[in-house]
Amino acid sequence: MMQLQVLLVAGTHGNEINGIWLFDEWNKSPFLINTHGIKTCQVIGNPEAKKAGKRYIHQDLNRSFQEESFLCLNSSNFEGSRANELVNLYGEVGENPCQIALDFHTTTASMGSCLVVYGRRDADLALASLIQNKLGLPIYLHESDQKQKGFLVECWPCGLVVEIGPIGQGLLNSRIISQTKLILETLMEQINQVKNINLFFPEKLEIHRHVKSIDFPRDEAGNIDGYVHPLRQSKDWQELKKNDELFCKLNGEIIRFEEDEPYVPVFINEAAYVEKNIAMSFTKRELWNLKEKWQQALIDLINHK
Amino acid sequence: MMQLQVLLVAGTHGNEINGIWLFDEWNKSPFLINTHGIKTCQVIGNPEAKKAGKRYIHQDLNRSFQEESFLCLNSSNFEGSRANELVNLYGEVGENPCQIALDFHTTTASMGSCLVVYGRRDADLALASLIQNKLGLPIYLHESDQKQKGFLVECWPCGLVVEIGPIGQGLLNSRIISQTKLILETLMEQINQVKNINLFFPEKLEIHRHVKSIDFPRDEAGNIDGYVHPLRQSKDWQELKKNDELFCKLNGEIIRFEEDEPYVPVFINEAAYVEKNIAMSFTKRELWNLKEKWQQALIDLINHK
Repeated sequence: MMQLQVLLVAGTHGNEINGIWLFDEWNKSPFLINTHGIKTCQVIGNPEAKKAGKRYIHQDLNRSFQEESFLCLNSSNFEGSRANELVNLYGEVGENPCQIALDFHTTTASMGSCLVVYGRRDADLALASLIQNKLGLPIYLHESDQKQKGFLVECWPCGLVVEIGPIGQGLLNSRIISQTKLILETLMEQINQVKNINLFFPEKLEIHRHVKSIDFPRDEAGNIDGYVHPLRQSKDWQELKKNDELFCKLNGEIIRFEEDEPYVPVFINEAAYVEKNIAMSFTKRELWNLKEKWQQALIDLINHK
Repeated sequence: MMQLQVLLVAGTHGNEINGIWLFDEWNKSPFLINTHGIKTCQVIGNPEAKKAGKRYIHQDLNRSFQEESFLCLNSSNFEGSRANELVNLYGEVGENPCQIALDFHTTTASMGSCLVVYGRRDADLALASLIQNKLGLPIYLHESDQKQKGFLVECWPCGLVVEIGPIGQGLLNSRIISQTKLILETLMEQINQVKNINLFFPEKLEIHRHVKSIDFPRDEAGNIDGYVHPLRQSKDWQELKKNDELFCKLNGEIIRFEEDEPYVPVFINEAAYVEKNIAMSFTKRELWNLKEKWQQALIDLINHK
């Protein structure tokens, strides 16, 4: 039977460096993180961007895991080639095959620690539920967003993104490193419990389901002419009611939340999303029953059935 | 008699955008900021870098105001040319002459609002003392640093830098904008009082005098192998005692403050200073008597004597 192997990625964005630090620390002190005997591969997602101190060189690596990118291998697109390379090296049928990918990110938004899952894949939801059950982290379900695709973890049978903030780009921070370590250890512990069929899945899972992203207010020339309202700044995960303040405009006008449904905002004022025309995203908070088939999918994957 | 004119600069670093926003707001609503009838010129220091969302294109504009830069005008060095252009446009003997320059910056360090003066120029110290007397802001006296020179304000007869943080690069934040507005208004009010000889200088001035900058710990290959200790993170302006923790190293070692003198750290973990090999700077807190000649220099400058 093939041994389970978990891919750990940090620095998928070259200016999100706290996970890279933790990996370096761990390499120097192998007993730092208890992986419960599960094999891991640690890799820097975008080493070129890390050297340059930037998010990426040519395009966002974490939007490059899609067929179009893999097809332009001979072009000078660094991230397209790197995505292909990572899949060839560590993909399910790669040279050094991994079944689960964990991708460690940071954000300038006040998201605290959270998990991001892409689409509704059974094993992802099961694994996320185990972490939520242990640590109480919110889960952001990213789906139904045609503009944003090609995420790294989607190329593995099971994969989660860990997002931690707020932290400025390019900065190391002891708090962020500790939070990253806690989640990494909890993930390894839970994967180990599934491996040993010594597991307790929660009955329910709280999901923040992506509904849409909204742009900053803009003037006629397309330039941003509003900023996040002081009452909204750093208020990620806090439910919006109709008429709540969203933005202050240059002309003094206040833009308010006009929806009838009580959406929950996330990634408020994430610096890297300005170029994507995203000021924040709206989610719907939902309590889901955990499905038997999700659990089975994770058990089967981890135990190679 | 020539009329007093004050140069206001924002976006000298293209990813420090809160001052630019305030200027835009002010242009739309001319009554937003009371300049007490004093003429001002507002300019974006580095518009190209702002467009690119970066600190600079070729080199730090706020280290480019020196003869070497002015001499390489025909090179492809954008910031060298821009520095020269700003002096030709707004310098003391420029097309649109300004006598005082105020340069608005932000930092990822938890500096709050503060003023930076470069060297010990009489008029700078007098103006800074007036602002400290009104708002209680700390003043960082940058001097004796051969590696760092060519600051914008040094090319004007009187000039201060306003630094506000913490804020991530490239982010707009309502709190930072409000703090910028308060200091700008106070500066204009105080300049107006000097103009009308209706002024009250404080007797003393508290200065944080630059002593030296320290680098991050590095391994033999020159790579950073330590981060700011959790007890030091965000503790700008808080006096260090011997044996206080400074950094955590990759190997678990703690680097401590070894000096006998109680230095005060500033710019702790400023993202843009990593490339300058600066983890933080040490200053000495000193209470100075305000000198008569400083006051006179400011009075003479503002009243064109």
